[in-house]
Amino acid sequence: MKTLLISRATLDGRTVDVLIEGNRFKTISEAPIEGTFDRTIDARGKILVPPFYNGHTHAAMNLLRGFADDLQLMDWLQNHIWPAEAHLDDRIVYAGTRLAILEMVRSGTVFFNDMYWYAPAVLRAAEDMKVRAAIARQAIEVTPGVNNPTNVESNAALEDMIGGCSDRVFLTYAPHAIYTVCGDSLREMHAKAAAEKSYYHIHVAETRTEMETCAKMHGGMTPIAYLDSLGVLDARTVMAHCVHLADGDIRIIRERGAVIVHNAQSNLKLDSGFFPFKRAVTEGGCRTVLGTDGCCSNNSMSMFSEMKTAALLAKTVADDPTVAPAAQILKMATADGAATFGINAGVIAEGKLADALLLDASNSLLVPGFNLASDLVYAADSSCVDTVICDGNVLMANRVVPGEADIIAAAREAAARLR
Amino acid sequence: MKTLLISRATLDGRTVDVLIEGNRFKTISEAPIEGTFDRTIDARGKILVPPFYNGHTHAAMNLLRGFADDLQLMDWLQNHIWPAEAHLDDRIVYAGTRLAILEMVRSGTVFFNDMYWYAPAVLRAAEDMKVRAAIARQAIEVTPGVNNPTNVESNAALEDMIGGCSDRVFLTYAPHAIYTVCGDSLREMHAKAAAEKSYYHIHVAETRTEMETCAKMHGGMTPIAYLDSLGVLDARTVMAHCVHLADGDIRIIRERGAVIVHNAQSNLKLDSGFFPFKRAVTEGGCRTVLGTDGCCSNNSMSMFSEMKTAALLAKTVADDPTVAPAAQILKMATADGAATFGINAGVIAEGKLADALLLDASNSLLVPGFNLASDLVYAADSSCVDTVICDGNVLMANRVVPGEADIIAAAREAAARLR
Repeated sequence: MKTLLISRATLDGRTVDVLIEGNRFKTISEAPIEGTFDRTIDARGKILVPPFYNGHTHAAMNLLRGFADDLQLMDWLQNHIWPAEAHLDDRIVYAGTRLAILEMVRSGTVFFNDMYWYAPAVLRAAEDMKVRAAIARQAIEVTPGVNNPTNVESNAALEDMIGGCSDRVFLTYAPHAIYTVCGDSLREMHAKAAAEKSYYHIHVAETRTEMETCAKMHGGMTPIAYLDSLGVLDARTVMAHCVHLADGDIRIIRERGAVIVHNAQSNLKLDSGFFPFKRAVTEGGCRTVLGTDGCCSNNSMSMFSEMKTAALLAKTVADDPTVAPAAQILKMATADGAATFGINAGVIAEGKLADALLLDASNSLLVPGFNLASDLVYAADSSCVDTVICDGNVLMANRVVPGEADIIAAAREAAARLR
Repeated sequence: MKTLLISRATLDGRTVDVLIEGNRFKTISEAPIEGTFDRTIDARGKILVPPFYNGHTHAAMNLLRGFADDLQLMDWLQNHIWPAEAHLDDRIVYAGTRLAILEMVRSGTVFFNDMYWYAPAVLRAAEDMKVRAAIARQAIEVTPGVNNPTNVESNAALEDMIGGCSDRVFLTYAPHAIYTVCGDSLREMHAKAAAEKSYYHIHVAETRTEMETCAKMHGGMTPIAYLDSLGVLDARTVMAHCVHLADGDIRIIRERGAVIVHNAQSNLKLDSGFFPFKRAVTEGGCRTVLGTDGCCSNNSMSMFSEMKTAALLAKTVADDPTVAPAAQILKMATADGAATFGINAGVIAEGKLADALLLDASNSLLVPGFNLASDLVYAADSSCVDTVICDGNVLMANRVVPGEADIIAAAREAAARLR
């Protein structure tokens, strides 16, 4: 089995050697680990921490970074984003997803829960770049009951591909939202997800319009109550946004064990509203993780930036500066993110899957270093990440990702075709 | 005169050569500039942009990064921050300010408007590291009418020092706040500032407690109305925070031409409240720039992060996603920041002071590159900054700041003395 020794890293304030065998942490020890290894990383002056797990995104939208901003939602979608997306094809989505993965790796993220068109291209990009990913069998029914042809083809191709892929990637069922997918399809996709022990990924309670439309169409119900009435909320249901939550919604989410993905920056940029962190998480006890959303509405994939905004915003929204402390936010972005998707990682411990970052302790953003969780949430940025390890593979070392120039050149070429 | 050629940089989409003579941009030309220069920077693949001007901070508080977070304001101040600050001395503040300047340079900032104890140490740090800075003659009257001894000594020392300093640094009058400085002193310091054409730097309307106390003590007046009644609001009055503004306050600020420094991240972290960007800036027309505040309440000095949070937050607070567009936010952090303090910089143009950044165009955060202002505000972080030029001097090249290891070692040693 392939061996990787991380030598003399700082872990929780101790100096340790970490031996990775295959894709797992085999031994973590203060005593130097002797032997011959396939690769050794000198980690003196480096801090070993878990990487980030991005709970909700549309990775290929990296190609639309800065394409259109600061507009009213429907102007933005109808006159800018959708016309650009009409140019999408398999090759463009592959190039865009690789750009997104490059950005994620450079900022310490090793997993993303995706939902986008041309999903086979997303799957290929994730496999080629050796990151973890949840790939969506997306459904958007333009006419209720009729799947979009792109989805149907993509979803069939995914089934053919997934068998030959690594354990790092898996498929989800992803009805886009309650206003784009009919109740029968919402139920049917959930039944398939349940039968396969797969995940169910959906946008929920993002905008005020969605709330009003849902109430009108479904006898005054909230989106959460409506989904619950369909029986699709359980511990494998992953709900992006949940900005607008009544107290009853919070109780339902907690009781079903469904997971909220909070996308603080996207919600602010699109003026979706303020996520009620204190009510839903601190007091409500809903399982909650963090996501960047797509690059059109953020416009980066940095979980550093996402953690900071989530932590800061929660305090003033709740009128309570003790809400969303750094350690809680960091756990949401790491261990909880991994656990949500059944990935046995997000914690540096023997037996866990070998996902890790080495941070440069001499980066001024991590000095003086009183509290690592605080520094990661409130101060750090991508420049602090020196080395990224996912599933035992070194994806970036000394801030170099192999093939970076080619990925960027391909992304520029693909973006030019979106105009 | 010293010459620096920036060769083949990208400026507003064109490829240019830029000749700096002494501390000014002498020639900007698409044709290559021939000749012999003291230094030439190969800027192929680099984007030339103005640097950032940080409108309000307490630089040395970098040493307290992560010292205490996520607490109620008075618990945080009385039980953590003030006891730590009791250990301050000239050497600690010098070390902390150098750490802050290092962080600022690495994230593209060349000026900071400071307010802190042991100001002579702040001034020395700014001069030694060749950045621009506004150094505060701070006043905090513990007993109204009596200056704090540290301030009195520091302020006297500043007067002795400033004559021997570069044009990059200058002094301000900085009464801490209306609740720590009495009305007579507020007026007296303004009279001195006016006589010297200096700046008047003060915290205003930051917390709800300040609003209530002001109303009680000053016949129902808001802090802005109170300051106006003292006659201290003019175009050289720089007011940090202004979170709580009545419509009448906004009219007064606009009419007096006083400047608001918006510190979005600090205001969120301390639960100060939501700055009314649309009312005060978009519609109110108040001159407004951006600041990071000190590292205890942010906890970084990155103007990238500050710009993003300011732009995102303004939209949802106003319930209008068109508020605070990227180009406006970028101008606030660059040209407007410089202009506020009479610094003829913040724009790359012949005759202007030679302050500039070179960004790495191949950093994935700037790809595909549809809109540079959007990319800088919403996506970039410190990793994008390759080279920093201030006043014609190269402060960082290829992401290396000379002396960085020594600055960090001294900061760690100083921070250890704060416990």
